[in-house]
Amino acid sequence: MPPRVTLLTDFGTADGYVAAMKGVMAARVPGVQLDDVAHDLAQGDIVTASRTLGRYWHLYPEGSVHLVVVDPGVGTGRRALALECEGRLVVAPDNGVVSEVVRTGQAWRAVEIVHVRAPGAPSTTFHGRDVFAPAAAHLAAGGPLADLGPALEDPLLLERPEPERFASGGARGTALAVDRFGNVATNLPGDWLQGVRAVELSGRSLPVASTYGDVAPGEALVLVGSDGYVEIAVRDGSAADVLGLAPGSVVVLPN
Amino acid sequence: MPPRVTLLTDFGTADGYVAAMKGVMAARVPGVQLDDVAHDLAQGDIVTASRTLGRYWHLYPEGSVHLVVVDPGVGTGRRALALECEGRLVVAPDNGVVSEVVRTGQAWRAVEIVHVRAPGAPSTTFHGRDVFAPAAAHLAAGGPLADLGPALEDPLLLERPEPERFASGGARGTALAVDRFGNVATNLPGDWLQGVRAVELSGRSLPVASTYGDVAPGEALVLVGSDGYVEIAVRDGSAADVLGLAPGSVVVLPN
Amino acid sequence: MPPRVTLLTDFGTADGYVAAMKGVMAARVPGVQLDDVAHDLAQGDIVTASRTLGRYWHLYPEGSVHLVVVDPGVGTGRRALALECEGRLVVAPDNGVVSEVVRTGQAWRAVEIVHVRAPGAPSTTFHGRDVFAPAAAHLAAGGPLADLGPALEDPLLLERPEPERFASGGARGTALAVDRFGNVATNLPGDWLQGVRAVELSGRSLPVASTYGDVAPGEALVLVGSDGYVEIAVRDGSAADVLGLAPGSVVVLPN
Repeated sequence: MPPRVTLLTDFGTADGYVAAMKGVMAARVPGVQLDDVAHDLAQGDIVTASRTLGRYWHLYPEGSVHLVVVDPGVGTGRRALALECEGRLVVAPDNGVVSEVVRTGQAWRAVEIVHVRAPGAPSTTFHGRDVFAPAAAHLAAGGPLADLGPALEDPLLLERPEPERFASGGARGTALAVDRFGNVATNLPGDWLQGVRAVELSGRSLPVASTYGDVAPGEALVLVGSDGYVEIAVRDGSAADVLGLAPGSVVVLPN
Repeated sequence: MPPRVTLLTDFGTADGYVAAMKGVMAARVPGVQLDDVAHDLAQGDIVTASRTLGRYWHLYPEGSVHLVVVDPGVGTGRRALALECEGRLVVAPDNGVVSEVVRTGQAWRAVEIVHVRAPGAPSTTFHGRDVFAPAAAHLAAGGPLADLGPALEDPLLLERPEPERFASGGARGTALAVDRFGNVATNLPGDWLQGVRAVELSGRSLPVASTYGDVAPGEALVLVGSDGYVEIAVRDGSAADVLGLAPGSVVVLPN
Repeated sequence: MPPRVTLLTDFGTADGYVAAMKGVMAARVPGVQLDDVAHDLAQGDIVTASRTLGRYWHLYPEGSVHLVVVDPGVGTGRRALALECEGRLVVAPDNGVVSEVVRTGQAWRAVEIVHVRAPGAPSTTFHGRDVFAPAAAHLAAGGPLADLGPALEDPLLLERPEPERFASGGARGTALAVDRFGNVATNLPGDWLQGVRAVELSGRSLPVASTYGDVAPGEALVLVGSDGYVEIAVRDGSAADVLGLAPGSVVVLPN
């Protein structure tokens, strides 16, 4: 089975920076399969990168390498890391993009990439090509994590707001993200919806339902999203737009 | 030869939904090759999805699986289908996206996907990951179509306007689509242009020509497009913009 | 090791033209690996295509085929070419997109594609599918370059402004391109920065530095870019926007 590397960046594609990374890996790992995740993240959007990585890292088979280069700190003192979690590998700058992997994975170990697996000195501005892609190639080829450098015990992790459950019942959570369809993800665990019939939000009472078809087109609803957390949606519409929600908006579940 | 799956969605890429589907397939079918078609279709644009699928499904080799998830009806009663046509396989919601395959293919058979090939209950909102990707993986691995569910005889098909040929000669057709270059595709068969020298459109007389180089830059022309149908183009320009054409515009061939 | 083809076009993805090319190659070369470079180049932007190709062609392993279809001249008399350079292959219209390969590669030979390796007459408007993809497939399968047609000695090459080095010291160069991050690439060789401490540009004095972290966020700097040429950047910002630079802007190094 050929090794597999996924690529998530904020590079866009037109400049050829992603293709340069692909070429480096193709040259070092014959037959490597390269799966694009996305290259259109907003520049330096570490929060979205972390969240996006959280959606697929564990669905890929063991041995897969997830390369994430959203790296506003390139050319500063930020560290580069490689991390193993549940048999999957992540190569990324140490800026928080691995937060969801660490939060949801069962166990992990990480190293700081200090032994660059490439000839010559790396450029000071394109670590994707000169540091991260060579490290990903090393791991995709079955090379040991420890070859890349010493253990890194304290990867930078993004803060994620914790939902509060009230003693009286009910809970308070936070909108975390809005997807392309305008669905609003929250940090409220889906099972906290049990027994809840409706949620007050933006001056409306939104029914709790199983899926979009439970309400009429254009109507808002609250449901358990595909990641297991409470989500706010509008059938055939954008909940973010209709309800005026954005990351950080407060969502309260009644008791 | 490793199996091959193509992916066409309206998911965008930044949220990682496409990568989740890729991960599901990579985990189930070692070595599967995943070819992106497009993920930037307008949300829920079934007409374009059908037309786009019509452009490549038959060019891929037999055994290829075409996964299409443009699915505004997820979470409603719409069925999920898997279809085999000329040795190629399509996995999609039953909402019309297979229309061009059925219209142009020699013979087809379809099943409703009812036996989800994944552990646990599928989410109610992300059938791409939990229903369609597992079904595509099943087929890519060589699994029988019939394993997925019972025969589906009546897939939903989109209406496509039929061109009229006049007894007196001449014909009336309809503009179907505008591509990125502003070329306007119609439903008029290319051989209906035989003997026609010019077409009146938007108050202009457009020459019938073989290719762009037959007219000066900026000039409009009528030609047989790469799909065998009459197309309106402007050399180095957008026919849609210059001539004010859009899907639904009437195009009359003279007698 | 399966053969590998990269794809760079200005087709966008939604119309399925890229997928049609992929299908043609997948059908002819079992197991071929298809790596997207970019499909969102501005329509007909040959200059960017050449520059982008220049960034990755040599990083891929020998035997790789680079398919570039940015082809505003399709349907005119422009030639189609296939080129071999340092063991890598390029298939493209003869409109200048191979310029950077020819400029930076050690030796090359090219042929005009006249023997189309596909059944039937090619369409007059979609040579990507009917001429270039079959030629790329032929080469990816290990077919000889010479099978495609006679030697082509004079590929069209884009002019690139030459930097001037003054006898008195100092130099004058030109901004060539702006990348997604707003970094401004120039034609000044990186080693011409030796001994230079600051560069006057847009009425400011920009320090020469090693990397972004050498200046404060929002500050501009001059450095050697990842391609070995002088680059103008703003840490955490766009040098093009902040300094009002665009391709063609003059950049003078002091003596």
